[in-house]
Amino acid sequence: MAFTLGIDFGTNSVRAVVVDCANGREIGSRVIDYPSGKRGVLLDPRDPNLARQHPGDYFYGLQESVRGALEAASAVVGFRRDAVIGIGVDTTGSSPLPVDGQNRPIGMEPKLKDNLAAQCWLWKDHTSYAEAARITELAAKHRPQFIAKCGNTYSSEWFWSKIWHCLESAPEVFAAADSWIELADFIPAVLAGVTDPLKIKRGVCAAGHKALYADEWGGLPDKEFLMLLDPKLADLRDRLYEKAWDATTAAGDLTFEWAEKLGLPESIPIAIGEFDVHYGAIASGVREGVLAKVIGTSTCDCCVVKFDKQVKDIPGICGIVKGAILPGYYGIEAGQSAVGDIFNWWVEVVCEGDANLHATLSAEAAAQRPGQSGLLALDWNNGNRTILVDPRLGGLVVGQTLHTTRAEIYRALIEATAFGARMIIERLREYGVPVEKVVCCGGVAEKNALLMQIYADVTGCTMYVAGSEQTCALGSAISAAVLAGPEKGGHPDFAAAQRAMTSLKPVQYDPVPESQKVYQQLFLLYRQLHDAFGGVDRQADLSAIMKDLIRIREEQVGDER
Amino acid sequence: MAFTLGIDFGTNSVRAVVVDCANGREIGSRVIDYPSGKRGVLLDPRDPNLARQHPGDYFYGLQESVRGALEAASAVVGFRRDAVIGIGVDTTGSSPLPVDGQNRPIGMEPKLKDNLAAQCWLWKDHTSYAEAARITELAAKHRPQFIAKCGNTYSSEWFWSKIWHCLESAPEVFAAADSWIELADFIPAVLAGVTDPLKIKRGVCAAGHKALYADEWGGLPDKEFLMLLDPKLADLRDRLYEKAWDATTAAGDLTFEWAEKLGLPESIPIAIGEFDVHYGAIASGVREGVLAKVIGTSTCDCCVVKFDKQVKDIPGICGIVKGAILPGYYGIEAGQSAVGDIFNWWVEVVCEGDANLHATLSAEAAAQRPGQSGLLALDWNNGNRTILVDPRLGGLVVGQTLHTTRAEIYRALIEATAFGARMIIERLREYGVPVEKVVCCGGVAEKNALLMQIYADVTGCTMYVAGSEQTCALGSAISAAVLAGPEKGGHPDFAAAQRAMTSLKPVQYDPVPESQKVYQQLFLLYRQLHDAFGGVDRQADLSAIMKDLIRIREEQVGDER
Repeated sequence: MAFTLGIDFGTNSVRAVVVDCANGREIGSRVIDYPSGKRGVLLDPRDPNLARQHPGDYFYGLQESVRGALEAASAVVGFRRDAVIGIGVDTTGSSPLPVDGQNRPIGMEPKLKDNLAAQCWLWKDHTSYAEAARITELAAKHRPQFIAKCGNTYSSEWFWSKIWHCLESAPEVFAAADSWIELADFIPAVLAGVTDPLKIKRGVCAAGHKALYADEWGGLPDKEFLMLLDPKLADLRDRLYEKAWDATTAAGDLTFEWAEKLGLPESIPIAIGEFDVHYGAIASGVREGVLAKVIGTSTCDCCVVKFDKQVKDIPGICGIVKGAILPGYYGIEAGQSAVGDIFNWWVEVVCEGDANLHATLSAEAAAQRPGQSGLLALDWNNGNRTILVDPRLGGLVVGQTLHTTRAEIYRALIEATAFGARMIIERLREYGVPVEKVVCCGGVAEKNALLMQIYADVTGCTMYVAGSEQTCALGSAISAAVLAGPEKGGHPDFAAAQRAMTSLKPVQYDPVPESQKVYQQLFLLYRQLHDAFGGVDRQADLSAIMKDLIRIREEQVGDER
Repeated sequence: MAFTLGIDFGTNSVRAVVVDCANGREIGSRVIDYPSGKRGVLLDPRDPNLARQHPGDYFYGLQESVRGALEAASAVVGFRRDAVIGIGVDTTGSSPLPVDGQNRPIGMEPKLKDNLAAQCWLWKDHTSYAEAARITELAAKHRPQFIAKCGNTYSSEWFWSKIWHCLESAPEVFAAADSWIELADFIPAVLAGVTDPLKIKRGVCAAGHKALYADEWGGLPDKEFLMLLDPKLADLRDRLYEKAWDATTAAGDLTFEWAEKLGLPESIPIAIGEFDVHYGAIASGVREGVLAKVIGTSTCDCCVVKFDKQVKDIPGICGIVKGAILPGYYGIEAGQSAVGDIFNWWVEVVCEGDANLHATLSAEAAAQRPGQSGLLALDWNNGNRTILVDPRLGGLVVGQTLHTTRAEIYRALIEATAFGARMIIERLREYGVPVEKVVCCGGVAEKNALLMQIYADVTGCTMYVAGSEQTCALGSAISAAVLAGPEKGGHPDFAAAQRAMTSLKPVQYDPVPESQKVYQQLFLLYRQLHDAFGGVDRQADLSAIMKDLIRIREEQVGDER
């Protein structure tokens, strides 16, 4: 028997899972909440855009979660610590942190421990919006190829925006840092004891999706371009990395020191770090034709296309990166800026209800027929990531009467996210990326049968749910199992590992033809609103929208009688 | 001293008020709730469009309210019953009821008392929408002049739609009726003892606004036209009326029998009945240049223009009727289908709060600056009466984030109704109807200072509030005082009566220039949405709407810091 360890660094906590390489079974796990800040996030009451994380929490969470997971696994017959053959790590991203020349986070130094700019800049930090806009502008002018693969828009959430904002807003912190590193690269380097930032094996997932890295233009953006931003960023380039690696390369081997600390065999291989959703996609069974959809507060859609195919730049898609998810494939990432967050907003902020209200509203909404409320909504409360790549948009609800209920609006918001999901699928297909099957994971997919059925009816795809409830950690463990190889009890490649170690839940959601017919009509109206408010159609005729909604409502009510 | 009695038949209750002719002071009043149905309204659980009223409730409410008001007045020094010099009556409308040859409601006959079609068809009954559409279509083709003065659309709420629907859906009731009469004409006729339907003095207010009556084409619609609807309606024309009268003509004198019942002097004059909002406008001081705005669940806007001016047909205005409000003037009526109803919907249906929540949300909303929420709404939850005359529209809210609160949406809904109010004012001015001053009345105007300030800031007009809280009843009393004449202690004309008997509350709401600037920007966005969804602009460029809302929000938040 052989086991690998998957460690998933989330926004609020870290989770370690011990997985059986033969079948993907999770035999022990442990979740550790980050001790600092508000649920692990350092905030600034004066700036709602700021979200940081204390690096000390990573060390604490790493040690406690792994020890806890191993302890839990030890109770299982057949498990032995020396049968752990590898470790995989996934994290949020882009979450870069400043480090010194020994890969030590400068935010842990006594003089900087209270300086928010010296901590890890969490993925959802949006303080760098001005720098992002300038990078987009400069790249559009001087290096259009840099942003062609990320929807022609460089985000405030990403690597260079954040570091530049640090340079501009906290130059003393920037000066104190020898290098910057993505959390997804940092943890594997720590476990492997690689301290020279230039020797750390950085993953192409973070590099390609967030740092404008591509082999075809020689790695990170050239110095000449970075000079246009700031000469200090051009200097920094020499202290980052020359090359980034896909998951066929090890980040290193576990040091004696960490092996002792965690209670694991020394020198087992550590997989290249990837972002949580990418390893999650692997554990959801992503392969050509399979769209892996992580539905949470927001949504991340991942798919892969073999290298031997020509993948065109796809307008509005967040990223197309060689080797980012699976080695040998383009990793393609799209997403919706808010999904669960919209439902939470409705329930908690507007209805002022607690979490139980989700169930109540879902039950009421499930009793309604498609179109019966006469409502239509846009899912843009947090902007639109794919396919408009525009954060400066807002939500919209249309068709309210004097009788419209909160449950009807709740359902309309679910439908809006489903229409948004369909826009992504259509865009992918339009540019030759096959989508034949959709596998979902994440809390919303597991808990909300109404949402899953609506997604099936709206997209026309059968919706499956990944077997594991911890796909991110499982995907990390799969990567470790491939890296360890079959001779150690692992697997020869990802396809074999996915066959052995992933599964689907027995439930599946098939499109209901009657509902599809109604949703087809509503989707056409959604697309009219989408194009009109999204700036795609600047001569929009919306005169029939409200009348069509009333007609559809009357047809549905009529059918019911 | 001289007094008149105003009697106001509302949707849920009837109110009688005894008024001092010298100064308009209300010295005694009494409200009687209708005993039947749900708060006075007979409903059909199978048909949400149906709303009827039991005629027996009118007799009960008339007697009890008048006796109660007189009793209350008797406690006031200087009041004597024999100093009551006239009676005025206002009612909802169009609220027609079927009567026999003696002006007796057939809904009170034992065999028909449980038949909903035999009762009074309350103004908000919408069962006749199909007939209304056919009348609109037929008139557009054959008699465009009939509907040119009512926005080119005949409503399901109006006289002929309702009677035709009765003929089609309950022919036995139609057959049992000798005539039909508006409630506003019925009550004065009862008090005056006029039993021959052909001799009843019908008011031009109801006739002109709801029954397509105009002297210029010979009264009611000609038989040839009514034949196109149904020959039985053409026959009915002979059993209705030839001529309708303005408020210079008396409906009759109080009979001995009713004088005894009510405890009033015999033979005092009874004014022509008008609709509640029209008499309410008079008590709000309507005159040329003054818009009287009755703000309640919906809004009714009334203004007047002297006969000697040429008043063009104004597209989208509900009605332009000679003599309908004040004798000698065109009465012009516009309105918004839902105002208070929208706020009630938000508070009661969506937020599931009680009436107190209005105060809570208003207080929170009042702490916000214009534009600060980034929201914009359309006030069309119940369709749009003026200027689109289109019931088949719906509400809309745009600009929601993940932090948008219920109070922010509440404020956006108030603002939406203010923008709708401005659309009406602009349309009136565009067609030469002067609007120099706005006087509001109704519960919302009296209670909601936030709304009044927003209306001032959005329209640029100082908003005044009528001094009386019972403008409808007061207006009826004013009409009676004019009819009784100065020799009896009344007044020589309406202008004199208005000077003596009406007043304004000391509060007034002046536009705040800073807020006006923001609202001017928001109004332009509102008009874009209005025109796009209302079918006015079929090549709409809405691409900047959401961005402008965000920009305005940021400017407002920035200003606050």
